Amino acid sequence: MKIPAAAPLTLRREGQETSLVRVGDVVFGGPTVVLIGGPCAVEDRQQILDTARYVAEAGGRMLRGGAWKPRTSPYSFQGLGEEGLPLLVAAREVTGLPVVTEVLDPRDVELVAGTADMLQIGSRNIQNFPLLKEAGASGTPVLLKRGMMTTVDEWLLSAEHVLNAGGRDVVLCERGIRTFDPALRNTLDVGGVALLKTLTHLPVIVDPSHAAGDRRLVCALARAAVAAGADGLLVETHPDPSSARSDGQQSLDPDEFRELAVSCRAVARALGRDL
Amino acid sequence: MKIPAAAPLTLRREGQETSLVRVGDVVFGGPTVVLIGGPCAVEDRQQILDTARYVAEAGGRMLRGGAWKPRTSPYSFQGLGEEGLPLLVAAREVTGLPVVTEVLDPRDVELVAGTADMLQIGSRNIQNFPLLKEAGASGTPVLLKRGMMTTVDEWLLSAEHVLNAGGRDVVLCERGIRTFDPALRNTLDVGGVALLKTLTHLPVIVDPSHAAGDRRLVCALARAAVAAGADGLLVETHPDPSSARSDGQQSLDPDEFRELAVSCRAVARALGRDL
Amino acid sequence: MKIPAAAPLTLRREGQETSLVRVGDVVFGGPTVVLIGGPCAVEDRQQILDTARYVAEAGGRMLRGGAWKPRTSPYSFQGLGEEGLPLLVAAREVTGLPVVTEVLDPRDVELVAGTADMLQIGSRNIQNFPLLKEAGASGTPVLLKRGMMTTVDEWLLSAEHVLNAGGRDVVLCERGIRTFDPALRNTLDVGGVALLKTLTHLPVIVDPSHAAGDRRLVCALARAAVAAGADGLLVETHPDPSSARSDGQQSLDPDEFRELAVSCRAVARALGRDL
Amino acid sequence: MKIPAAAPLTLRREGQETSLVRVGDVVFGGPTVVLIGGPCAVEDRQQILDTARYVAEAGGRMLRGGAWKPRTSPYSFQGLGEEGLPLLVAAREVTGLPVVTEVLDPRDVELVAGTADMLQIGSRNIQNFPLLKEAGASGTPVLLKRGMMTTVDEWLLSAEHVLNAGGRDVVLCERGIRTFDPALRNTLDVGGVALLKTLTHLPVIVDPSHAAGDRRLVCALARAAVAAGADGLLVETHPDPSSARSDGQQSLDPDEFRELAVSCRAVARALGRDL
Repeated sequence: MKIPAAAPLTLRREGQETSLVRVGDVVFGGPTVVLIGGPCAVEDRQQILDTARYVAEAGGRMLRGGAWKPRTSPYSFQGLGEEGLPLLVAAREVTGLPVVTEVLDPRDVELVAGTADMLQIGSRNIQNFPLLKEAGASGTPVLLKRGMMTTVDEWLLSAEHVLNAGGRDVVLCERGIRTFDPALRNTLDVGGVALLKTLTHLPVIVDPSHAAGDRRLVCALARAAVAAGADGLLVETHPDPSSARSDGQQSLDPDEFRELAVSCRAVARALGRDL
Repeated sequence: MKIPAAAPLTLRREGQETSLVRVGDVVFGGPTVVLIGGPCAVEDRQQILDTARYVAEAGGRMLRGGAWKPRTSPYSFQGLGEEGLPLLVAAREVTGLPVVTEVLDPRDVELVAGTADMLQIGSRNIQNFPLLKEAGASGTPVLLKRGMMTTVDEWLLSAEHVLNAGGRDVVLCERGIRTFDPALRNTLDVGGVALLKTLTHLPVIVDPSHAAGDRRLVCALARAAVAAGADGLLVETHPDPSSARSDGQQSLDPDEFRELAVSCRAVARALGRDL
Repeated sequence: MKIPAAAPLTLRREGQETSLVRVGDVVFGGPTVVLIGGPCAVEDRQQILDTARYVAEAGGRMLRGGAWKPRTSPYSFQGLGEEGLPLLVAAREVTGLPVVTEVLDPRDVELVAGTADMLQIGSRNIQNFPLLKEAGASGTPVLLKRGMMTTVDEWLLSAEHVLNAGGRDVVLCERGIRTFDPALRNTLDVGGVALLKTLTHLPVIVDPSHAAGDRRLVCALARAAVAAGADGLLVETHPDPSSARSDGQQSLDPDEFRELAVSCRAVARALGRDL
Repeated sequence: MKIPAAAPLTLRREGQETSLVRVGDVVFGGPTVVLIGGPCAVEDRQQILDTARYVAEAGGRMLRGGAWKPRTSPYSFQGLGEEGLPLLVAAREVTGLPVVTEVLDPRDVELVAGTADMLQIGSRNIQNFPLLKEAGASGTPVLLKRGMMTTVDEWLLSAEHVLNAGGRDVVLCERGIRTFDPALRNTLDVGGVALLKTLTHLPVIVDPSHAAGDRRLVCALARAAVAAGADGLLVETHPDPSSARSDGQQSLDPDEFRELAVSCRAVARALGRDL
C-alpha cells in the first residue's frame, strides 16, 4: 500500500483506537455496526414519517433524507430545499432517530447544523474546500462521502480539511468509485474500506445503494461491507420505490430493508459485532 | 459516440455556428486560437507584472493567475485570496490583457466578477452547483474546467447549469482526466475536444499544463490540442518556475512559453487559423 | 445494470440453477465455499509439499501453484516451467488435494491438462482467444480469471469462447480490477461478483490476494467476497513469504492462512453455507 | 513523470537517436510520418486490392489488413484466417506497399513472418508473452499495439520481451486507452506519445481509428497525433465502410482517407516533417 500524505489529525497513530463519533445516542466506531436508512430525497411528510418508522423497527439507528439534492442536470428534481428540514425534524420526534442530511452550500451550513444531527458532505463536494471548512467550523458531526474519483489519500486530506477547521467528529463513507466498467453504477471499493481501517482512526461506513445502483444487489454489497470491517451502512429505502422522485431503482422497499438488516446482523455477529 | 443528455442551451443545433465568447477584445470561438498564459498562483506584484509582460509579447491574449487556490492538503499554500485581485488588475492595466481567475466560493462570486474579466470554475467544482449558479447569474463570462473524472455528458450538463442560471458566455476547458496510468499527472483527452466541437456550440480550449504535469511535455500537448481543433490554450508559466509556490514542475519559463507560441502558431496556420 | 451481450452458453436462463463444477471430489457452485490455497509459484519440492499440507489441514480443498509465470518484465523469475508440474503431482499424491495451475501457451495445454486437475487462464490472457479455445477443447475444467481491464460483459464472452470450443466446466475468478487509485494493487469488484451471480450459471470465486496486494488486507477482502456470495476463494500462501520468489508481500504465512479459513468459515455459516 | 522500469533494450540512453525501423523501403523514426492504411479485416481480393490502390495514391506507405481477427464474441466474424494472407500478398504485388497484419497465435508466427513484412501484436496480446517471444525470435519487424489498459511502463516492458527474444525492430502503436468516459470508444493518450518520445528510442505511431471509434473524429485525432510527435499513423479505411464486416463505423471511405492525408501532411510540414 502507498504511504499516505501528511494528515496528522486524520491518520491513526501507532496503537491509537478507532475514535468514537457520537450522534445523539448513536455511536460510530464501536462494536455496533450503525444502520442508517432513509430515502434519497425528502418528498413529503407522510413519506418521511413512514420511512422513519419502518427503519427504526428494522433496527436502523439513524434516518437519512436529502433536502437539497445535487443533480447532474438542472432540469431534474432538486429537492424540497429548506422546506425539507422541518419534515426531518418531525420524523426524529416521532421515532427518536437522529437525522443526517446533505448540505451543498457553505451559506446553508449554519441553518442545517441547527436542525440536523449530522451534516452530510456529498461525493461531488469532496474537494469543495469552503464547504468543508464551514462544516468543520460548525462543530456538528460530519459524514464525509468519498468522491467518485477520489483516491484514499485525497479523501483523508479532505477529512483533514474538516478537522483542521475545528471539526472533531468525522465519519468517512465509501459509496463506490467510478471505473471503466459500466455494468454497475459504481464499483464498491471494499479494499479501500479495509485499508482505511488501518490508516485512520475515523470510523468508516459504506453506502451500498449508490455503489450498486440496482436494488437487487444492495444487500450483497451491504454484507460485503460489514465483512470488510465497515462501522456502519447508509442505505436508501423508500415506502414505494417505484414512485420515488430520485434513485428509485436503487432504493429498497420496506421488506427488502428488513431483510438487509437481518442478513447484515448475521454477518456482524459472526465477526463479534452486532447491528 | 453516445447520445448526449438533454442540455438544450449547450448542445449545438443542426447548422448552428460556434458561439463567439467575448472577453474584452478577445474572442473565443473565432479563427484565432486564444493563448492564455500566467502563473498557477498570483504570488506578488513583481511576479504577476513580469509574467503579464512576457505573455503579451509572446502573443498571449489573456492573463491567468489564481488568487484562491484549491489545494488537496490544508497545509499547502492556499493563495493570497482577496489580496491577489488588485495585483491582477495592475497587470491588466500595464499590459491590456484581460484576466481570468478562479473562484471557489459562491460568496466570492460578486467580488471576483467585479474585478476579473472572466471567472474560472476549477476542476474540483465542476459539480458545485451553487457555485455554478452564482457564476451564471453574475453575467460574467465563465471558463468551465472539466473535472478530473467528469464525462463529456456531465460536463455539458454542468455548462447547462451555468446557462440556465442566466449565464450567456461559457468556454469549456479540457485539462486532462484521471486514468489508470500514473505515468503523467493526467491524460489529455483530445478526443473529447474533437467530440465537443461537434456536440456543443460553446468554444472549447485546452490546458496542457495540468494534463502533462511536466514542463517538458506541455508544448507537445498544446500542439496536439490545436491540431484537434481547440479554440484556445490555457498555459501555466512563471518567470522562475523553480521558485514557484505551486505547480512549478509544470510551469514554462519565459523562453519555453515563447517557443510554445511559435510552435502552436505554426500548427494553427497549417489548419487555416492563427494564434 | 447493463443488459449483457449474447452469450447463450454462459448466461443464466430464467430459473436455472448454478452449475456444479466438479474437480476431483471438490464441487464449485454448491453450498460449500471452496478454499484454494498455495504459492504464487512452485519453487521447489519442499515448498510445495509443505504448503499443500498446511493448506489441507486448514480446510483448503485445492492446491494452487504456478509452473509458468507471466511476468511483466522478461528479467523477473519466470517460474520452473514444465519442471514444476511433477512437483504439483507429488503434492497432490501426498495430500489428496486436486491442483490448479496456469497455462500460458496454447502449445502447453495438452501437457498441462494431462497433469493438473484444473487449468487456470490468467488475467493477462482473458482475451487470448487461441488459448481459450485450446483450454475449452481439452475438456479439463477451466478457472478463468478476469482481466485487470475486462468488463463483466467481456468476461462472460471470454467464458463463452471456452464453452463454445467444447469446454463444459468453467469457474470465473474475480481478482481485482485496475482503477485510478494507486492505494492498493487492484480494486476488488465485489459488486461484479454479486452481479455475476445473477447473470451467469457458472460458479464465481474470488482471489483476494491480487486484489489487495498486501497480506494485511487479504483476510478482510476474503470475508467480503464470501459475504457477497462468492463460491470459493483462491488465496496465495507460502511457508515463508519473506523468501518467496514472487508475490511475497501478498502471500499469507501458514498462521494467517488458518485464520483466514476460520474467519471466512464464520461468515459462510452465518449465510447458511460452509467452508 | 514516473521513472520507468528497467528495460535496457527499450529505453533511450542519454543522447541516443530514435532508431530507424525499416520495413521494405519504408522507414519509421525518420523525418517522414509514415501513413499506413487499410481495412480492419481482409474480406476478399477485390476489397483489398481496391483499398491498397487508393491508399497508395493518397500517400499511404504501407497496407494494413487483418487475416485473423480477435473478437470479443465467438459469434462475430473471425477473419479469413490463413486464406487472407495471399490476398495481402497480391495487394503488395500490385501496389508495392509492404503489408502489416496481426498474428494471434504463437503457432502462426512462422507462417505470417514468411508472408507479411511486419507482424502486428494487437492490444489484447500486449502481455501474451509466448507470442511476444515468438514474434521477437522471428526477426520480422513488430508493430506492438498498446493494451487498452496498459501503462506506459508495462508497454515498454512488453517491448523489452520482444527485443530480449531476439527482435531488433519494434514500432510502438498507441491506439487509445480505456477510461471511465463512454463518450468515445477509447481515449487517445497523446501525452503517452509525447512521453514515449522522450523515454524510448523506438518509433511511436498512433492508430486514431480505434481511439475514436467514429469516423467523424478520426481526422482530428490523426492531426493531434502528428502534432504530438508521432512517427506514423495506422488508419482503418474501407472502399465502402457501410458494408464492412467489422469496424465499419470507424473506417474512413476513400475520400475521407485522402482528406486525412492532406490535413496531416500540412501539420507535419508545419513542424518540419513530411508525410
